[in-house]
Order: sequence, then C-alpha cells, then structure tokens
Amino acid sequence: MKTLLNMKKTKNENVNNNSIGVVETQYHTIAGQGDELSLESGEKLGPVTLAYETYGNLNADKSNAILVLHALSGDAHAAGLSLEDHSVGWWNDMIGPDKAFDTHRYFVICSNVIGGCKGSTGPSSINPATGKHYALDFPFITVADMVHAQRRLIDYFGIDKLLCVAGGSMGGMQALQWVSSYPEKVRSAVVIASTLKHSPQQIAFNEVVRQSIMADPSWYEGSYYEYGQPKKGLSVARMIGHITFMSDKSMEEKFSRRQKSDKFSFGFDPAFEVEKYLHYRGLNFAQRFDANSYLYITKAIDYFDMSGLNLIPLGKTVDTRFLIISFKSDWLYPSYQSQDIVRLLKKRHADATYCELNSTYGHDAFLVEINEQTTLIKHFLDKTFNGYMVAGKHGR
Amino acid sequence: MKTLLNMKKTKNENVNNNSIGVVETQYHTIAGQGDELSLESGEKLGPVTLAYETYGNLNADKSNAILVLHALSGDAHAAGLSLEDHSVGWWNDMIGPDKAFDTHRYFVICSNVIGGCKGSTGPSSINPATGKHYALDFPFITVADMVHAQRRLIDYFGIDKLLCVAGGSMGGMQALQWVSSYPEKVRSAVVIASTLKHSPQQIAFNEVVRQSIMADPSWYEGSYYEYGQPKKGLSVARMIGHITFMSDKSMEEKFSRRQKSDKFSFGFDPAFEVEKYLHYRGLNFAQRFDANSYLYITKAIDYFDMSGLNLIPLGKTVDTRFLIISFKSDWLYPSYQSQDIVRLLKKRHADATYCELNSTYGHDAFLVEINEQTTLIKHFLDKTFNGYMVAGKHGR
Repeated sequence: MKTLLNMKKTKNENVNNNSIGVVETQYHTIAGQGDELSLESGEKLGPVTLAYETYGNLNADKSNAILVLHALSGDAHAAGLSLEDHSVGWWNDMIGPDKAFDTHRYFVICSNVIGGCKGSTGPSSINPATGKHYALDFPFITVADMVHAQRRLIDYFGIDKLLCVAGGSMGGMQALQWVSSYPEKVRSAVVIASTLKHSPQQIAFNEVVRQSIMADPSWYEGSYYEYGQPKKGLSVARMIGHITFMSDKSMEEKFSRRQKSDKFSFGFDPAFEVEKYLHYRGLNFAQRFDANSYLYITKAIDYFDMSGLNLIPLGKTVDTRFLIISFKSDWLYPSYQSQDIVRLLKKRHADATYCELNSTYGHDAFLVEINEQTTLIKHFLDKTFNGYMVAGKHGR
Repeated sequence: MKTLLNMKKTKNENVNNNSIGVVETQYHTIAGQGDELSLESGEKLGPVTLAYETYGNLNADKSNAILVLHALSGDAHAAGLSLEDHSVGWWNDMIGPDKAFDTHRYFVICSNVIGGCKGSTGPSSINPATGKHYALDFPFITVADMVHAQRRLIDYFGIDKLLCVAGGSMGGMQALQWVSSYPEKVRSAVVIASTLKHSPQQIAFNEVVRQSIMADPSWYEGSYYEYGQPKKGLSVARMIGHITFMSDKSMEEKFSRRQKSDKFSFGFDPAFEVEKYLHYRGLNFAQRFDANSYLYITKAIDYFDMSGLNLIPLGKTVDTRFLIISFKSDWLYPSYQSQDIVRLLKKRHADATYCELNSTYGHDAFLVEINEQTTLIKHFLDKTFNGYMVAGKHGR
C-alpha cells in the first residue's frame, strides 16, 4: 500500500490529503439475524461473518450511503489509517473529507467479500461442522453470493436504498451484480476498469494463476493450514498478476532494463529490477493472502456473466444511474469491455455515462489515477444525491 | 504442429501444398574441426554438436544459401516430413518448392540452437568432463553464442556469404545478431515479430516462466534427469507462454467462453475450453522440451540487446538488406519494437523495408499467416538474389 501511495503522490500533486484518520475494521455476523446464506450452488453457508469499515455518518433518512466494493485481493480497509498494521486504506485518496467519496457528505461502507481471507468467512475460516479450516470443503461461491451477503449488511444498517455502489475491477463486477440482483436498492453505480464477463484471455490468466498454486505440493489439495501457505506457487501466481496489472509502458517507465548490478551477471537469480520487483510482490502476497481464497475468488469472477439479459431482464427498466470508467492502457480489462457495458445499458434504456481516461498505469490506474476519477465521481455523486433529494427517497 | 497446419489451411487457402517430402535431421560436431567454442561468458564449450536440416541444393558458387533461425522452443525441423515422429516442419508452408523460401532456387539450412534440447548441445547433453548431464553446469549462453556456433556450421558448408538469415521472434534476434557479429557474411536479413531488446514486460513474463519451473520441487536445482522433468512447473510455464503467443481476439475467436459441459460445473477442474487447451499445451510441452533448456534460452533472449550501436557500430556501414515484418495483434513483440529496429537501421543508413501485417493471430502469426509473408519474402529474396548475381558475389 505504501508503494502505491508514493506513486499517487507524485502523479496527483493536487490530491487533497485530508485523511479520515484512524479507522478500525468491524465484523458483522449474519447468522445472528436469522438463517444461513443460500448460495447459487444450492449449498448453504453459515454462520457468515463480514468484515467491514465505515467512513462518515449515515444521515437521518439513510439516503447518503455508498457501498464501496473491492477488487480480487482487496479488503474492507479502503480508507484511513489502521493502527493494527499501520496501513493506509487501498482507496484512501478517493475516500475522505472533500474527496471523490466525500465523507462530509456521504456514509461510505466497504465490506470484505465472502470467500476472502480478510475477516470475512472464507476457505481459511473454521468450519463449525468440523472445527477445522474449511479448505476445499468451503462451498463454491459466485459474485452474486458475495452481493447477497453484502445485502444482509446493508439491511443491518437499515438502509433501504444505496445512493451508490462503486468499485474497480472485481469491485465493478459486484456493482453490476448489485444492479442485477437488487435494482430497487441501487440509486447509482460507478463501474471502473471492469467487464460484463471475462474474455477467454482473462479466464486463461486466472487458470494459470490457479494451476500455479495447485502445482505446488505444499498446497496439499487445499489442506495446508497446519503447515503454512504454498508460498512458491502462490508467489508465482501473484507475479503473473502483477504483470497484467501494469502496462508495457508503465513497466518501461518504472524499470526499463535497469539491473541492480552494473556487472553483466550470469545465472538464474533475478538480475533486472523488474524481476526483483515481481519477486518482492510475489513473496509479500504469499505472506498476506490465503491461497485457497485466491482460487475461489478467481473462479467466481471467471463464471460472472452479466451479458445479454442477465444485467437487466427483458421487460424491466432500472432507474439506476451509471458511470462507467476505463483506462486506455488497461489491457487486462480493456476499454472495449467497458464500452460493451455502456452499449448494453443504452440498449436497455438505462442512464449511462462513459469516460475513457488516458492513464499509462494499466489496470492499476483505478487505484492510482486519482485526479480525473475524483472529478468524474464527485460530479456524478453530487448530481445523483441532489436529484435524489429533490425527487424523494425512492427516486424518480 | 498438426493443429497449426489445420489453422493454416483454413486461413491460407491458396497456399501451395508442394512439399519437399521426407527429411532427416543431421548432426554436425564442431569440435571435430578444431577447438572448443569460446562463449561470451568467458567459458569454453566443447564438443559442440548442432542438429540441422537442409532443403534444396547449394549452387556451384555457394551464393544461394539461406539460414532459417528458429524461435524459443523450435528445432532444426523447419520443413518437410520427419519419419521419426511423423511431424511436419514448423515453417513447412514457408519453405519448399515455389514457397516463400523457394527450394527450387535456394539452399535452406535450419539449425537448432545451442542450449536447446533437440539434438544440439545443451544442458540435457552429457558433460564429457563428468559423464553426466550438464544440468546447471552447462555454461551460460547468449544469442551471440548461438550465432557463433551456427557460423561454424556455415563454414563447414564452405559458404562465404549467406544470401539471407531469416527468422521470427528469437529467430529474428539471431538474424540481427548475425548482422552484428558477421556483417560481411550476411547479404540480407528477414526479421519477423522480433525486437532489438526485451522490454521489462517481456523479461517479466520470462522470469515468471523460469520461477514456475524452479518452484517445482521436481526440478531439483536442475538435476532432474534421472527422475524425469519437473512436469507441473514446466506445464504452467508453457501455459503462460501460450497466452502471450495468442491475441485477445484470436482467443475470443477460437474459444469464446465455451464450456465442454453445458452444466454449470463448480470446482477447480478446467471447465472452459480455453482452460482445457492450455492444459493440453502445457502437458504436451512438458513431454517434449527440456526444462533447463527453457531456463537457459529465456535468459539468453532477456540479455540480448542490439540497441544503440550494438547492431552497427559507429563508423561502420553494412550492405545487408533488411526486411522487417510485424503483426498488428502481436502484443508480446508489439509492432513498435519492429519500428524501433527500422528506425535504428535507417539512422545507420541501412537498406530497410518494413511492413506491419493485419493478422489477428497475435505473436503466433509468424507461424500461421503465410500468404502475405510469402508475397513479401519471395519478392525480397528475388530482388536480393538477382541484385547479388548482377553485382557479383561480394555485394554491390
């Protein structure tokens, strides 16, 4: 996170540095409210805990709530400073006083997805039926299941309709899923660097990532919790990921062909700076993210499909307003996929605005290109919130 | 190979099917002629054997010889039918009677690179000093070392000057290296889908490939020859490769999101056709290509650098004619890298022609887009050969 923040500072000099200060992750267990979660697979999951954070204050009529949705390896800690590990939230430059998601005005919630490993119920959680980690006994989950769980959290806050659901990458998929599953509960959606469905290339990268983890004998068919993570496989998996998150150009800018040593070194140790960077990222990830969660979540997004009539069924209209953003240099979630979202929304007579931003940061841009995203999102939320207040709580 | 040939047939209906018939790989041991090979690392290697094939006949004044150079996992079997494994050469549609490299007219040689595993001396060869496989005792090799070895083969044929050196991808790098190392011996060069040097993104992909192999405990620090290949790691490595060889579009055309089973199947077995394809390719490769060769050769191409004055030193001119070809959808060796080659050649007053072809096949295009390549190369060779005959053996 710190690396990202440094990048942000150089790239976005006029980002305001108002911080929401110290935050603490909280936990909500759904089972306390009633039954288990019914999953798309037909299986039941319970008890289900969601880790979440909130920023700002919910207003009296609960009309100012924004649900921020994280990407593949993200977590509930989207903004502010955690005293637990002294980390700054992954979207800290976007969420806070006077920022894109202005906490003077809005109540922002970010919840970790189920299947994850950052406090929400996932394959590394204890299975109450056995007293052991679920591992591969954890049921298969989908993006819809993630959203159904989040809906229970929103119910817990007594929020009838969200002002906005917003996220990049897998966060954008969840935003689309929210519209599909609960159109009446979503006033607006911000979908950044995302897609209606994975292309075969995206599935292929995820499959290689999974195979890399599963090829590690320390994975033990998922039952590695007593012995530690399958570090080597997980590290290679994440190295692949990091190549796809950056662009050819941003790699050139950041590393070029620089070598740590001036001496032409023969051998198989990493010699180029880009190699060392990937090693560092891979090992770091293997220390902080559960390998099985990576398997479950990549599979969930591969199966995600909002194309055709899945997003808005025939005969239905939605009053949700959409802001779709993509980045020119993002080749993992290329702009044509965002344009496909817009095309589908227009076809279904939805209110959609699209903007392609000129960043060179590749897919990472949704985390680091703050200025232009701030302008677009601030204005979009203003308009949504003001229109909302005029029209009354339930929209048009 | 058969899959590629089928693709070619549908894509290139007017490719002529004249085959040069049955061919046999031959072997030439350099050490027999004299000393060992002095490598760029300062080490010596010997004896050195090169596997090679030839097609067509060398003319009386030995002025019609073309050296075809293969890519990363290629071999000497570039054309015709091998009775050993009933395989058709990897550039069979380009080499043969009346084809791009017309064997009625030219004498075509293709030699496997040192460091490889297809009959040339490499890490899987027996180290005469120990009687065991070299494994990681094999010295570090560079693209220049590959070319120095090939030069000894050309000497063996008594060829003073090659009419052309030609290759795609790593084959194109060898072609450039030939010009750099032996400009007086190269009348022309065809450089397809290649580069002056690897970008950090290309190095990054190769490093992930290497790490995937080395993360497999069955790699045994390179000393796996008694136990069999590190199959899982090598398979994952090749899966990554195959993603980079294709384009987003060609994957969409070939696989889309098709699943073998209509049923939505939960679990981590490959479900999408693209996943099954990658698995097949990965396992197939692990059965046919030496893991250590993959490590050595990827490292050689990462260190390759013909930028600046490396290709043509200051104060020198070359009379080599160049044809540079790239493919619009090739994102592994993008067109801008070919344009960089052309820019450098023009700056150094060399005779260079450039063409970007409109294929959707990605990097694989150099193997499968036959029609347009044939037109360009046929014409280029005609002109080179005719000019050569008029001007006399030693050029203009």
